[in-house]
Amino acid sequence: MTRKVTILNGPNLNLLGKREPEIYGSDTLEDVANNCATLGKDLGIDTTLLQSNHEGQLIDWIHAAREDSDGIIINPAAFTHTSVAILDALNTFKGPVLEVHISNVHQRESFRHHSYVSLRANGVIAGFGVEGYELALRRMATLLG
Amino acid sequence: MTRKVTILNGPNLNLLGKREPEIYGSDTLEDVANNCATLGKDLGIDTTLLQSNHEGQLIDWIHAAREDSDGIIINPAAFTHTSVAILDALNTFKGPVLEVHISNVHQRESFRHHSYVSLRANGVIAGFGVEGYELALRRMATLLG
Amino acid sequence: MTRKVTILNGPNLNLLGKREPEIYGSDTLEDVANNCATLGKDLGIDTTLLQSNHEGQLIDWIHAAREDSDGIIINPAAFTHTSVAILDALNTFKGPVLEVHISNVHQRESFRHHSYVSLRANGVIAGFGVEGYELALRRMATLLG
Amino acid sequence: MTRKVTILNGPNLNLLGKREPEIYGSDTLEDVANNCATLGKDLGIDTTLLQSNHEGQLIDWIHAAREDSDGIIINPAAFTHTSVAILDALNTFKGPVLEVHISNVHQRESFRHHSYVSLRANGVIAGFGVEGYELALRRMATLLG
Amino acid sequence: MTRKVTILNGPNLNLLGKREPEIYGSDTLEDVANNCATLGKDLGIDTTLLQSNHEGQLIDWIHAAREDSDGIIINPAAFTHTSVAILDALNTFKGPVLEVHISNVHQRESFRHHSYVSLRANGVIAGFGVEGYELALRRMATLLG
Amino acid sequence: MTRKVTILNGPNLNLLGKREPEIYGSDTLEDVANNCATLGKDLGIDTTLLQSNHEGQLIDWIHAAREDSDGIIINPAAFTHTSVAILDALNTFKGPVLEVHISNVHQRESFRHHSYVSLRANGVIAGFGVEGYELALRRMATLLG
Amino acid sequence: MTRKVTILNGPNLNLLGKREPEIYGSDTLEDVANNCATLGKDLGIDTTLLQSNHEGQLIDWIHAAREDSDGIIINPAAFTHTSVAILDALNTFKGPVLEVHISNVHQRESFRHHSYVSLRANGVIAGFGVEGYELALRRMATLLG
Amino acid sequence: MTRKVTILNGPNLNLLGKREPEIYGSDTLEDVANNCATLGKDLGIDTTLLQSNHEGQLIDWIHAAREDSDGIIINPAAFTHTSVAILDALNTFKGPVLEVHISNVHQRESFRHHSYVSLRANGVIAGFGVEGYELALRRMATLLG
Amino acid sequence: MTRKVTILNGPNLNLLGKREPEIYGSDTLEDVANNCATLGKDLGIDTTLLQSNHEGQLIDWIHAAREDSDGIIINPAAFTHTSVAILDALNTFKGPVLEVHISNVHQRESFRHHSYVSLRANGVIAGFGVEGYELALRRMATLLG
Amino acid sequence: MTRKVTILNGPNLNLLGKREPEIYGSDTLEDVANNCATLGKDLGIDTTLLQSNHEGQLIDWIHAAREDSDGIIINPAAFTHTSVAILDALNTFKGPVLEVHISNVHQRESFRHHSYVSLRANGVIAGFGVEGYELALRRMATLLG
Amino acid sequence: MTRKVTILNGPNLNLLGKREPEIYGSDTLEDVANNCATLGKDLGIDTTLLQSNHEGQLIDWIHAAREDSDGIIINPAAFTHTSVAILDALNTFKGPVLEVHISNVHQRESFRHHSYVSLRANGVIAGFGVEGYELALRRMATLLG
Amino acid sequence: MTRKVTILNGPNLNLLGKREPEIYGSDTLEDVANNCATLGKDLGIDTTLLQSNHEGQLIDWIHAAREDSDGIIINPAAFTHTSVAILDALNTFKGPVLEVHISNVHQRESFRHHSYVSLRANGVIAGFGVEGYELALRRMATLLG
Repeated sequence: MTRKVTILNGPNLNLLGKREPEIYGSDTLEDVANNCATLGKDLGIDTTLLQSNHEGQLIDWIHAAREDSDGIIINPAAFTHTSVAILDALNTFKGPVLEVHISNVHQRESFRHHSYVSLRANGVIAGFGVEGYELALRRMATLLG
Repeated sequence: MTRKVTILNGPNLNLLGKREPEIYGSDTLEDVANNCATLGKDLGIDTTLLQSNHEGQLIDWIHAAREDSDGIIINPAAFTHTSVAILDALNTFKGPVLEVHISNVHQRESFRHHSYVSLRANGVIAGFGVEGYELALRRMATLLG
Repeated sequence: MTRKVTILNGPNLNLLGKREPEIYGSDTLEDVANNCATLGKDLGIDTTLLQSNHEGQLIDWIHAAREDSDGIIINPAAFTHTSVAILDALNTFKGPVLEVHISNVHQRESFRHHSYVSLRANGVIAGFGVEGYELALRRMATLLG
Repeated sequence: MTRKVTILNGPNLNLLGKREPEIYGSDTLEDVANNCATLGKDLGIDTTLLQSNHEGQLIDWIHAAREDSDGIIINPAAFTHTSVAILDALNTFKGPVLEVHISNVHQRESFRHHSYVSLRANGVIAGFGVEGYELALRRMATLLG
Repeated sequence: MTRKVTILNGPNLNLLGKREPEIYGSDTLEDVANNCATLGKDLGIDTTLLQSNHEGQLIDWIHAAREDSDGIIINPAAFTHTSVAILDALNTFKGPVLEVHISNVHQRESFRHHSYVSLRANGVIAGFGVEGYELALRRMATLLG
Repeated sequence: MTRKVTILNGPNLNLLGKREPEIYGSDTLEDVANNCATLGKDLGIDTTLLQSNHEGQLIDWIHAAREDSDGIIINPAAFTHTSVAILDALNTFKGPVLEVHISNVHQRESFRHHSYVSLRANGVIAGFGVEGYELALRRMATLLG
Repeated sequence: MTRKVTILNGPNLNLLGKREPEIYGSDTLEDVANNCATLGKDLGIDTTLLQSNHEGQLIDWIHAAREDSDGIIINPAAFTHTSVAILDALNTFKGPVLEVHISNVHQRESFRHHSYVSLRANGVIAGFGVEGYELALRRMATLLG
Repeated sequence: MTRKVTILNGPNLNLLGKREPEIYGSDTLEDVANNCATLGKDLGIDTTLLQSNHEGQLIDWIHAAREDSDGIIINPAAFTHTSVAILDALNTFKGPVLEVHISNVHQRESFRHHSYVSLRANGVIAGFGVEGYELALRRMATLLG
Repeated sequence: MTRKVTILNGPNLNLLGKREPEIYGSDTLEDVANNCATLGKDLGIDTTLLQSNHEGQLIDWIHAAREDSDGIIINPAAFTHTSVAILDALNTFKGPVLEVHISNVHQRESFRHHSYVSLRANGVIAGFGVEGYELALRRMATLLG
Repeated sequence: MTRKVTILNGPNLNLLGKREPEIYGSDTLEDVANNCATLGKDLGIDTTLLQSNHEGQLIDWIHAAREDSDGIIINPAAFTHTSVAILDALNTFKGPVLEVHISNVHQRESFRHHSYVSLRANGVIAGFGVEGYELALRRMATLLG
Repeated sequence: MTRKVTILNGPNLNLLGKREPEIYGSDTLEDVANNCATLGKDLGIDTTLLQSNHEGQLIDWIHAAREDSDGIIINPAAFTHTSVAILDALNTFKGPVLEVHISNVHQRESFRHHSYVSLRANGVIAGFGVEGYELALRRMATLLG
Repeated sequence: MTRKVTILNGPNLNLLGKREPEIYGSDTLEDVANNCATLGKDLGIDTTLLQSNHEGQLIDWIHAAREDSDGIIINPAAFTHTSVAILDALNTFKGPVLEVHISNVHQRESFRHHSYVSLRANGVIAGFGVEGYELALRRMATLLG
């Protein structure tokens, strides 16, 4: 049976691969979407990758995932540290939630050390580059059985 | 003379009655709107209930209320704790502002104990369930004379 | 069936209506007692309003309420912020507890922002003036079914 | 015209002169009362000195002073650091309030460095020994004109 | 020679054995008094057990113990965390002071982790149930020689 | 050669000149736009002034400025203190960034003392009224050479 | 049926009785072991007393106690305040754990006021001198029934 | 025998009586000097009043007082809160030190609540207006015996 | 070319699979070693898995890895939060370091939210169960090229 | 009518243009003085630029400005963060005060993020290089009308 | 008479001279031992230099030094900041203790700014490179007279 | 080639040897100057020792040292903890800077534990008595090569 997983991306991630490639690499978000789709096919998972700079839009998508997704992978970017609303939205979601950060946020400014999303996430992966999305998808396959 | 009151609701409240009914009860936001409309009729108050997951939308509605409302009742949900922008918007509103929380936020995580909105609100009611909206409306009737 | 509710008031509230009427209004605690008694009659609730400047006296009354009251409405005044003992006493009470503050304590000095009583109270109402007692009584009627 | 001043003393001050005389001196609270009465006669001030270990009793006496005293001199002892209720009571008093500490509290444990009473007191005197009461009385004479 | 020990108990302990027996056990304060009296007889110690919900009353009893007791065992309950006045009173007592808590306060809310009384007590025992009183009495026998 | 500068304005600034004119003056945001356009003409700078109450919209505009602007002047208003996402967006912009506040934020509530945007801005100007926009534009002309 | 109890001692306790006897008394750890063995015989408890300056060794002994002991009495000494690893080890132990400190740690430097071990211990005894071990053993007998 | 007392005044006190007379009164520092000289004559004390806006100058004067003064009365003004160097200088002075503040600093900004000088002063008087200097001089007479 | 990776495990992990299987699962550390060895064979990586309850032993092994390993995967367990020495040891290692936690430490006690090891690790994975070791090994293969 | 403005500069600014020119530029304080004098002539303002490494000297100059200047522009340099005395001196000045920092202090060490002077300044400009002095002078012309 | 001094070194110092020579120099711990032995001969001091990555081993050596050494020079490395146990061990040592850090720890991460060992050490030397050991030895010679 | 080193001393150090000799020893600052001059001659270093109670004077001397000294040894005394201005002055100095404290400041009041000067100093020596100056001079000789 095919499972469905929504992969959400927060603010500024639309620029992935277009800025500071020495830090974030040259893969774009489209590359991530393709990599995840390919891997998902192997794992029996349909993936949908979405990005927005609007907190409210991300919340709307989480609500939608309540209806049509089995799991959520989320890179909340800057909203990681400031959005109680996204935490609350994720708290209404029944399936597994995995949190991805491309860089190791613990080595950046101290205000990036705290994550509201981690209070809900089943797992967190940080500093694994864009490969983190694929590893999270592998874990999701395990969790969704 | 009939008064007009805008009842604003923040992120995730569109799911009211649909999630964790053992905590939040089974009343939906539509039920709240109806209860307030009925009670408002008795009190000589026209009520309009709005909800959004977008902080900017809530600010736009507060600005609109400057033109057409005598009072604001607001359940800012997660924005309670993070939105200086909503506080600033409410600071431009001349009439009374009452703040409602369905659960007793003081018994939840510590980051929910601080409210920016309380710095402006004339009164705060928390932990009275959805009945808090109606009690706030009664108080609003007193304040609007 | 008639229910019984004890309405407790902490230090300095015996001066209500006699000091700073521009802030607290001109209603005295006797007026509050009368208003609550009248409303209580409508709601099928017998109310007893008590006040003391002595923390120990308030604890004794909470213990007494364990025997003869179905609910407690309490305005702990200054003890809100300092009395772990009143919190512990309320923790021994089985019925609903509602906390009332006449002014919006969140707009006063920071040491008034923390409430020990809120750790036990089912609901909190602040900044609704003396009308807060009556609204709390309405909520109590709902809770006592 | 004779003025009236109430001199209030908080917990454990009934033991003054009977414990640790090397720190607090050998004067008892009765000696303080007599010294103040004598000096008061010169200054045209009737003094009443009271002491209690009960916070509620001190609040009752402050309320009484609203009726019959022109000024209050208070050594709140341990309640200095913990009693919001005494602060609130003093806030209802219209005349001048002077705060006295026998020892220099700034040189003792850090929890003794904060005073709620100082938020209301017109003046504070600390570390002047029991002579502090008489100096406060001289200042009171100036303030009462 | 028979020694005398006062066993003081703070607020809400009059309800011991009557509330939450799964936590505090079913022994009442009377049972504690009897157990201590019996053990005291073996150890050559006369015990007097007192309880009050009034901070001032406890201070008065500590002052009295200065005259007629060789040691004090105290369970300050909620006053543990808030009463500088009881600390000051105990500081005037010359004999040994032992502090007892029935539950392990370190596993409860963080505001229960700090004890003013411990700044004076010779020893502290927490989480040993009501047996803690008897063990403290054994230690007192050793200290009183 | 003509340079292009985007002037961004955060939440509630659409009300400029319409609220609290005694604090913010009577100039509207349109007046600011006109003043900047006129001064820009002298300095050889094309200016575009934008305002939104939506954090996501401001981020989208910053991304757009990456393509078509040489510098950004931003008055983030309430988002100054809460938006890591705007900071991250500005971090992707290569040209100079100047931050403007109409009032002196250091004299307002303490939560307004911290600015995420200042961690990226080349310069900050606060409390110079709406004239601050024009002074920032003069500085921008210097920086853009 | 004979029960088995392991009595663990942390760093520097091998010097007990050999340093600062005016504080810690002249009893050595061997004396403690003998006293406990003797008392244990009366209580039907076999005791084994161990000491190490190595955190890892103490963890190994806690693991061993999982196999062969019914209860643990531990004086973690300096590791009380720094060792999350010992806390985690104790969390894997099913039987009762009692924590002993010879001196009243609450009267020493502030970094000695926090105990990781107390988050697991069933009871804590501090400031009862080496007699604390025996009193803990008595309590252990009660807990092991 | 005549005693000598140096009265030191910190920055901006040269403006006393010339600014904000509704707060600080209309007495100038010269008036204070004259009042103290007159009272000093009665008490058998020679007074010298000095003022400087330079921290180093005040330290030099404290060093000089080591040679020729029996006591120091100091109003450190703004240096109260920032000068460890003046504290260190006063620590080298053997006689009594009394600290004076004209206003009640506890009611001003929080950074004015901490005093380095109080760590050395024998007594502190605040909020007694310029009369505080004379009351400190009376106390000095007692201390110098 | 075959690469070598050392997989280090901190205190109490020798009990993996033997305690709280509902949280940590029933896989033992031996199972983890076997899984990693098998996966390593596919990836061209020789793995060595080690465990110790002794901080010093772990440091010694990190030093050894400087000579014979290309990368380190470490689950520091309780030492995550307390060991600056392990951080310093890892800082001397030139190859990639990946940090693994079986549970999501951000949802446990607050003292588990801080990691010294993250200050050095190239990536962190938490809350992915024992599968986290294998995902880290996959990432290591990518990093070692 | 010509206005007079004093431009004050704090410690180490005498080295401007002589150290770290890549950060602070190659303009010296004399260049700043000349630029301001020239611009001042256009704006009808006489400027006097002063510099001292002595806090007391700066206070003396502020006092002098009370007599002969209409406005003060001040770059307090390191005293920004430590001098309550300069704040107090500026509080005695009736005209407008503008604060200038050459670099963006918000991007330097955290102890440079707090400014006592900002509590009094009408406006603050930071990170605009030495051009900040001239922009402040333009603003001063507006304020002095 | 020849004195004996033990020179203790904490974790990772066995790698001295082998890692980051641009920071720590190229001297190894053996070089330090030789330099100290040579200088010690001149000063009449026998030196023994020891190193361990095990906290417990260092404590054992401090205990041994109680028997056979007149002074201790210690570079606790990472244990400086985390080991209360080493502090306690040093507190049992009667002779002088000097603390050495090769780099200036005050310029590194904030968690390296606090030293438990400094609470006991007679003197501390930091940032003097490996020469710090020899300078400490010279001081030791003075202290041992 | 002879090198030149300026030895700066902060407030109250002119009293060295004249106050509290049991703590600071009986050597005066002149003795220190002589000892350093003598040792300097051996090391090929000309030393100039200066002292002032004025922060501004010390800054002026640091500026002068930019022209005529190769290194600075500084005992900032109380300014250690409060002077950002001295830190900034030292930051303009190119040669090595060594910081000396006669006593071990880490064992004194907590406000003495922080040093602004250490943020610039190459090395820090504390608690080595006046011998610390000479040891710093030896290190300076090494640094100046």
